[in-house]
Amino acid sequence: MALRLGRLGSGPCWRAARGGGCRQLCAWSARGTSARVCRPPGTAGTLLCRGLGHSPSAGGGAWLGTGLAAALAGLTGLAAAAFGHVQRAEMVPKSSVARSPSPGRREDEDDLARRCSTFMTSPVTDLHELRRRPEDMKTKMELLIMETQAQVCRALAQVDGVADFSVDRWERKEGGGGITCVLQDGRVFEKAGVSVSVVHGNLSEDAAKQMRSRGKVLKMKDGKLPFTAMGVSSVIHPKNPHAPTMHFNYRYFEVEEVDGNKHWWFGGGCDLSPTYLNQEDAVHFHRTLKEACDQHGPDIYPKFKKWCDDYFHIVHRGERRGIGGIFFDDLNSPSKEEAFHLVQTCAKAVVPSYIPIVRKHCDDSFTPQEKMWQQLRRGRYVEFNLLYDRGTKFGLFTPGSRIESILMSLPLTARWEYMHSPPENSKEAEILKVLRNPRDWVH
Amino acid sequence: MALRLGRLGSGPCWRAARGGGCRQLCAWSARGTSARVCRPPGTAGTLLCRGLGHSPSAGGGAWLGTGLAAALAGLTGLAAAAFGHVQRAEMVPKSSVARSPSPGRREDEDDLARRCSTFMTSPVTDLHELRRRPEDMKTKMELLIMETQAQVCRALAQVDGVADFSVDRWERKEGGGGITCVLQDGRVFEKAGVSVSVVHGNLSEDAAKQMRSRGKVLKMKDGKLPFTAMGVSSVIHPKNPHAPTMHFNYRYFEVEEVDGNKHWWFGGGCDLSPTYLNQEDAVHFHRTLKEACDQHGPDIYPKFKKWCDDYFHIVHRGERRGIGGIFFDDLNSPSKEEAFHLVQTCAKAVVPSYIPIVRKHCDDSFTPQEKMWQQLRRGRYVEFNLLYDRGTKFGLFTPGSRIESILMSLPLTARWEYMHSPPENSKEAEILKVLRNPRDWVH
Repeated sequence: MALRLGRLGSGPCWRAARGGGCRQLCAWSARGTSARVCRPPGTAGTLLCRGLGHSPSAGGGAWLGTGLAAALAGLTGLAAAAFGHVQRAEMVPKSSVARSPSPGRREDEDDLARRCSTFMTSPVTDLHELRRRPEDMKTKMELLIMETQAQVCRALAQVDGVADFSVDRWERKEGGGGITCVLQDGRVFEKAGVSVSVVHGNLSEDAAKQMRSRGKVLKMKDGKLPFTAMGVSSVIHPKNPHAPTMHFNYRYFEVEEVDGNKHWWFGGGCDLSPTYLNQEDAVHFHRTLKEACDQHGPDIYPKFKKWCDDYFHIVHRGERRGIGGIFFDDLNSPSKEEAFHLVQTCAKAVVPSYIPIVRKHCDDSFTPQEKMWQQLRRGRYVEFNLLYDRGTKFGLFTPGSRIESILMSLPLTARWEYMHSPPENSKEAEILKVLRNPRDWVH
Repeated sequence: MALRLGRLGSGPCWRAARGGGCRQLCAWSARGTSARVCRPPGTAGTLLCRGLGHSPSAGGGAWLGTGLAAALAGLTGLAAAAFGHVQRAEMVPKSSVARSPSPGRREDEDDLARRCSTFMTSPVTDLHELRRRPEDMKTKMELLIMETQAQVCRALAQVDGVADFSVDRWERKEGGGGITCVLQDGRVFEKAGVSVSVVHGNLSEDAAKQMRSRGKVLKMKDGKLPFTAMGVSSVIHPKNPHAPTMHFNYRYFEVEEVDGNKHWWFGGGCDLSPTYLNQEDAVHFHRTLKEACDQHGPDIYPKFKKWCDDYFHIVHRGERRGIGGIFFDDLNSPSKEEAFHLVQTCAKAVVPSYIPIVRKHCDDSFTPQEKMWQQLRRGRYVEFNLLYDRGTKFGLFTPGSRIESILMSLPLTARWEYMHSPPENSKEAEILKVLRNPRDWVH
């Protein structure tokens, strides 16, 4: 049974949904178009929210959690692929405060509640808990990733103008959960996913070993290492071959050793994968990210830009996945607050770096050949994500992962042609050249 | 420059092609349809043969070679993806005997030449060399895989009736080479690839280590281990969602230790991945393979059938890739000859196990929904090949691999939908049930 939740601060709509008042509208469609309901004023797109009432199934809590945003987005105890839609449709009642403000209670009595009311749904962590520790980085980061999810989804829905975001809330047996928002087969977007996860528990020995291999030797107690990890992860695939694919993620990690010693770090990035090169778009995208980074130091953008080119490398093709952007990991300096502010600035740059580009090109005319080249580039995207992306691979190989949240990054459609090679001096050859030799876009 | 070679025993056509007499017909098309030339009597499909005159580029000869048919099919020093078609089109002159029988020489004077004349093109190894060692297993196996390639290509071309096989001959800098035949976007087939490779040289230490991890401790000299590996590997994706995808490969490996001690083994298999379950087809496929295996002992089919179900497992989905077939590796008993005869019988069973099924269904009517489900299953096929298939992964991560031969196994088109789950009791749910719980088809 699917329960609909309104969004964009529509508290009363939440209540109505929980009461089951519009169940007849809630059947979920694989095409994502039959669920268009409850269009709030001021937004073209609307949202369907489905919670998951099932207890998480598979066991295993092994979690690497460093630089693995997709795993972050996908890790939960629920093997969702095994369930039909009807089975997945119960709401998880967690906090009466979050979902049902007492009648008569004014939102301005509570800044936190007001802030949360702009999210796609209530945060993963109970509002009581968030209110109890307002200065804790876990609270700040969870609010940031929820806010980023809402900002991006709202902007995408406005551009699309037709299709809906489905909103899935899921829980992780071992602790925490997530919220996965997907818009599929819309007017502008082929597939757009924005997923939040906030998970905690104990790192397994295997996961801790992985961290040792990354230069961190952590003291465990009885083979356990308490951790918290959270992040927002997103991949946006537009339909029009002149509108590029965009990916971003921002994440935070905390781990506590047996002697009480705490480690923390941030990671993240944002990168663009166009089908065809558009110099102006590339400069706009990189310049927006550079301006964000520059607020925190002149060396940040060059370092993160190179890191991005190095990371999104389809080695067997000798190509980058796209024209890059920024990427970073293990960021734990100069201070927790300053690192957070950098992440916050970068997260805020997602919408201005990307939305103008997709808005500019979403109605461009294109030929079947251009569409086919886009599909071939989608194939390369799949190759990178399945063969190289650390988060995707780690998530898929970790028992208890939420497969659907991890693989929401894959395009709706992709193509592989044997020995395809574009003619010299073609537009297709032009972008390939850039993918093989990353350029400096802002100097 | 593309040079056309006739096939199916068309010796004179080879000569004409080498003379460049029909260059105007040889421009290679990404769609695979403009190259239809030189249709020999008795076959509806025709073939375009392109040789590769470029020296192999990338270095590295690391090669696992155990159970890795896709790597076998793809390993060469040529990073083909980096070249345009024009660049790849020179013929490699290797043996005047193979390609240009002396005028007046009668084919029946030479059984080997007559046998070779039925192949897609001349074998990888020079005919002088093959003639020198007729009883060597390397000769027997190379002729078997060349023969199997030709039989399968001929049968597929006849069923398709319209599209052509492109035939790429490639060389490996470190020794050996291969012949990759691909039919793309035909009437019946979306993509059909049948690739032969025959490679030799020295296994690197890394590759030898891999073999140790498989239970073989091999004594190297100066970090080197001479090896020969050869195989035929194929994936056939029909267009019609009621015609299943089929994969097979058969391979042979030899390695020589420093003390002259030789090891050898065979591997291979054949499996079916239908979009919809057809009980009759499944029984026919498995029964044909069982009859082949039963000629060599009653325990073989049950063992290889289970091995196949275990190997083609998309673990993160909890699904098998298809309804199985047979799979085996490290086969080195009861004797080299007997093992070869088993492989030979299995290879001969490919056409009768599959062609009647694809012929039966290639003109079935289907709905857009059925096509979409096929595309989703294609997505799963991609997931298996990129995430789990040992050969694909090893090949891709080995410097000097021929990427295009390895990735010819990927479908022309594929699809991923977020949270797709077919309705209960649907035809889609029926096949999923079988993919989750492999069945016994012949008892």
